[in-house]
Amino acid sequence: MSNKIKGIGASNGIAVAKVYILDEQPIVIPTTKAKDVQSELDLINSSINKAKKDLESLQAIAKEKLGEEKAAIFEAHASILQDPAMAEEFVALIKEQNYNASRAIDEVAKKYIEMFGAMEDVYFRERAADIKDVTERLIRYVLKMPVLDLASINDEVIIVAEDLTPSQTAQLNPNYVKGFACNVGGRTSHAAIMARSLEIPAVLGLKTILSSVKENDILAIDGSTGEVELNPSDKLVWEKKAKKFAQEKVELEQFKNKKTITKDGFDKFILEGNIGSPKDVAAVIENGGEGVGLFRSEFLYMDNDHFPTEEEQFEAYKQVVVDMNGKMTVIRTLDIGGDKKLSYFEFPEEMNPFLGYRAIRFTMDRKDIFKDQIRALLRASAFGPVGIMFPMIATIDEFVGAKKFTLACKAELEKEGVKVGSDLQIGMMVEIPAAAINAENFAKHADFFSVGTNDLIQYSMAADRMSENVTYLYQPFNPSILRLLKMTIDGAHKHGKWAGMCGEMAGEPEAVPLLMGLGLDAYSMSATSITKARSIMAKLTLSETQELAKKAIECETSSEVLELVNQLMSTK
Amino acid sequence: MSNKIKGIGASNGIAVAKVYILDEQPIVIPTTKAKDVQSELDLINSSINKAKKDLESLQAIAKEKLGEEKAAIFEAHASILQDPAMAEEFVALIKEQNYNASRAIDEVAKKYIEMFGAMEDVYFRERAADIKDVTERLIRYVLKMPVLDLASINDEVIIVAEDLTPSQTAQLNPNYVKGFACNVGGRTSHAAIMARSLEIPAVLGLKTILSSVKENDILAIDGSTGEVELNPSDKLVWEKKAKKFAQEKVELEQFKNKKTITKDGFDKFILEGNIGSPKDVAAVIENGGEGVGLFRSEFLYMDNDHFPTEEEQFEAYKQVVVDMNGKMTVIRTLDIGGDKKLSYFEFPEEMNPFLGYRAIRFTMDRKDIFKDQIRALLRASAFGPVGIMFPMIATIDEFVGAKKFTLACKAELEKEGVKVGSDLQIGMMVEIPAAAINAENFAKHADFFSVGTNDLIQYSMAADRMSENVTYLYQPFNPSILRLLKMTIDGAHKHGKWAGMCGEMAGEPEAVPLLMGLGLDAYSMSATSITKARSIMAKLTLSETQELAKKAIECETSSEVLELVNQLMSTK
Repeated sequence: MSNKIKGIGASNGIAVAKVYILDEQPIVIPTTKAKDVQSELDLINSSINKAKKDLESLQAIAKEKLGEEKAAIFEAHASILQDPAMAEEFVALIKEQNYNASRAIDEVAKKYIEMFGAMEDVYFRERAADIKDVTERLIRYVLKMPVLDLASINDEVIIVAEDLTPSQTAQLNPNYVKGFACNVGGRTSHAAIMARSLEIPAVLGLKTILSSVKENDILAIDGSTGEVELNPSDKLVWEKKAKKFAQEKVELEQFKNKKTITKDGFDKFILEGNIGSPKDVAAVIENGGEGVGLFRSEFLYMDNDHFPTEEEQFEAYKQVVVDMNGKMTVIRTLDIGGDKKLSYFEFPEEMNPFLGYRAIRFTMDRKDIFKDQIRALLRASAFGPVGIMFPMIATIDEFVGAKKFTLACKAELEKEGVKVGSDLQIGMMVEIPAAAINAENFAKHADFFSVGTNDLIQYSMAADRMSENVTYLYQPFNPSILRLLKMTIDGAHKHGKWAGMCGEMAGEPEAVPLLMGLGLDAYSMSATSITKARSIMAKLTLSETQELAKKAIECETSSEVLELVNQLMSTK
Repeated sequence: MSNKIKGIGASNGIAVAKVYILDEQPIVIPTTKAKDVQSELDLINSSINKAKKDLESLQAIAKEKLGEEKAAIFEAHASILQDPAMAEEFVALIKEQNYNASRAIDEVAKKYIEMFGAMEDVYFRERAADIKDVTERLIRYVLKMPVLDLASINDEVIIVAEDLTPSQTAQLNPNYVKGFACNVGGRTSHAAIMARSLEIPAVLGLKTILSSVKENDILAIDGSTGEVELNPSDKLVWEKKAKKFAQEKVELEQFKNKKTITKDGFDKFILEGNIGSPKDVAAVIENGGEGVGLFRSEFLYMDNDHFPTEEEQFEAYKQVVVDMNGKMTVIRTLDIGGDKKLSYFEFPEEMNPFLGYRAIRFTMDRKDIFKDQIRALLRASAFGPVGIMFPMIATIDEFVGAKKFTLACKAELEKEGVKVGSDLQIGMMVEIPAAAINAENFAKHADFFSVGTNDLIQYSMAADRMSENVTYLYQPFNPSILRLLKMTIDGAHKHGKWAGMCGEMAGEPEAVPLLMGLGLDAYSMSATSITKARSIMAKLTLSETQELAKKAIECETSSEVLELVNQLMSTK
């Protein structure tokens, strides 16, 4: 390789250090038959115990280093390890198919990894990485292979690897591990998310990095741009970069507690966090989030062996609402089906699950199931401002139907003497083109919109972003997408409603100026992106973003739009 | 059942007659092993010969009754029967799996039926019906079961059946068979298409009709509304209906040779036919079509065992252009991939094939394959006005890329001294929301647009119309869809280009007034729908349709739009 290559910047920051080559012995699953069923079962059990001990100590390390919330991942790992359904499948394969222990684990793991890995939502794909991580650890113990202990690294290094598992990433001590560079992965891979939490710079998707380095090489990486240089010729350049990054970090830190306000004093935009469970609220508050713009309710259903009861759901929603302490919490009703399956419910097989029976199409078809959720949400709304948000709304009929159903549940609760909040809002996701196109009429009925950019882009472009051959069509900055956003926002404002966004785009530094110019009211993103967005808003006047948006809408291509944004931002 | 039930009106017309119950002995495939391989092979061969003879005589009957073009279906059946690839698979199953002859045929047939049956385009689904038809005939001979001869019916009857195969339908003598009513099927099923050609009234999808009738019952059916009455109480009502229908038929007949003109004299709209092969041109001309608005080029690829050569394609395109005799022919470039596969090329497996690697995404990725088609199209354009149309365009970059490629091929041909037409237009399908939304900018580059409503509706609603649970979202009259049409048409006109439609909607009587009002220039449909559309245009003034469209755009729901249309049409 040339000594400069480019990957995907996955966790901001600059690092220059000696490489540490993580070249784990690959697992080869033997196909030999189990000689003796009982001894294979014993082997699995003893390995599970070893792995469990690892996870306990990892959790202790992580708790200290990353806090309670991030350490919880190892609890999740332990529960995968002890999952009775999985254990039953191991046993069945050993008993019935005479599989050896490692092969049984591998087979079962593959099934689950494939199921979760195929999902579009990054939250669920992470689950695949977790299962892979835990089961590989287990298999290594079964096969009596060494299990790496990255916590013991005590020299300043940049780790170079094919990939890092979540548990490997969590072990890294930022005092010594200055960064990492991997062949595979992207911004939404689990390693990237963990790296951002640990604030370790990371560049992923480098393809050939592992084969290009040797011990004692020096590597320089830029986790924002994805630039990597091997044995850098000009160290001064990297020192400057590092200094600039450190300054920006200090600057962003200050934005945690600042008001969200534009350079010319417009202070009506709000910055919020996306969460997947009550545990995630802490990070939103810590980063100065002004609300929760999206609480994905799916985890309550997926981390379960039955449809969660009204009571179970109520407790979870209430906790978030109480923790948000008077700030708005928008909770999305169940978006299941399509690629998201449940172990305890069978969805129909469909040729194009993204265009199928999912979300509101499922819940309004199964009001018996939906009712528990709606009642739980309504009850939680007694504890603070709540927005109930319906996903995958395509027609006004659907929205009006779901709203009516919600109001009927509300009347029922009130009749039962149960308190429901007075601040309740009933809104919808705008993630289907038909909804954006006729937003001005939807806004007569909905209290708010929240744009789901991933789906909206997918459907508008007719391109599954998970399908390798057409990812080039996933273009958030395409003028057609901007036009849809404009219709949505203008439609809301026409009837005095607010429009938000809870897709990945809301937190992207290049998108923020455009969204401001289009008049988007609420920006919901990963908690860690909030300060950056706030700092961008502080640099821009409302009128210059409006001018930018006006020009961008008239562009022909995505790259023309990006050029306009970069032009403006380069003057800041 | 009540004596009135409602199904799907599949072929217009009124009939009142005695029922003829077609209750064929169902095929039960024995699972017994082949005792002797050679005798099973002999049995297949002798059965193929019997079936071939049937098909020859069916073809002769059909030729006389339906003309050369429709009789060609039996040629297609004969070629399925003699397909060497299929035969090889029969033999393999018999030899290797020891299958008996009927089971071998059944297995192979199922595979092909499933493949074609899963396709979205009705043209390909018909192919599944053909294969089923032929292979069932073959299996009946193998199992020595009776094969029904419907051509021998010599009494005035309405056939009541579970379903009718294409070959059964083609045998029907309209002098005796006054109509048919089936439990399954819809407007696009093969039986419906054949019924319309034969001009036999048909009501399909009746679910329970077969179990509700007995010999000597009288049945009355209305093939437009789908109404069916068993032993009708008021015969006068049915006589009136029949009379009205006959009048309208005579009226429509006259429209074959009339000008396309509105009541107030606007004569710029044109009515065209959709075709799938050169054979289909005859029907377009016969029905007064003013051009071919869509020639699907897929058949050249699917009815083949290799990518068709430039020469093979040139001959087919040229024939159509020559037969159209100076009228415009719009040919869509290969729309393969997604659900449409080729036996000689492997497409990647995708989770959501409708959102995947297909059409222009495939052809521009494989210019080596695309080039043969573009050169053939360019050469054909020397023989009359041709429009080259790219499918599945989502971004301006894609269109500009494909146009550039076409112009490069043109320059190459001219350098070789090969003639290319001067009337050539290069346009695009508008079937992806992103294209409709930014049509005004696409129109700077494209010579014309043609809206593909099936896909446009699917993507805009994020609903696969083939998925049972979400078919309710297939709403051509939804205001969001009308808004997309308006953007497309206005966008084209802004730059002096024309906008057409080649999806199913263009020929729907309720859609025509709206499309006129929106200013659509070209309407391409099944040849048999042309006269109806022309008669509707003759009844309406341009200004009243414009007023209709303006109101419809402001509606909230599909049913509100339909009400407006019906209101207007009820005064005509």
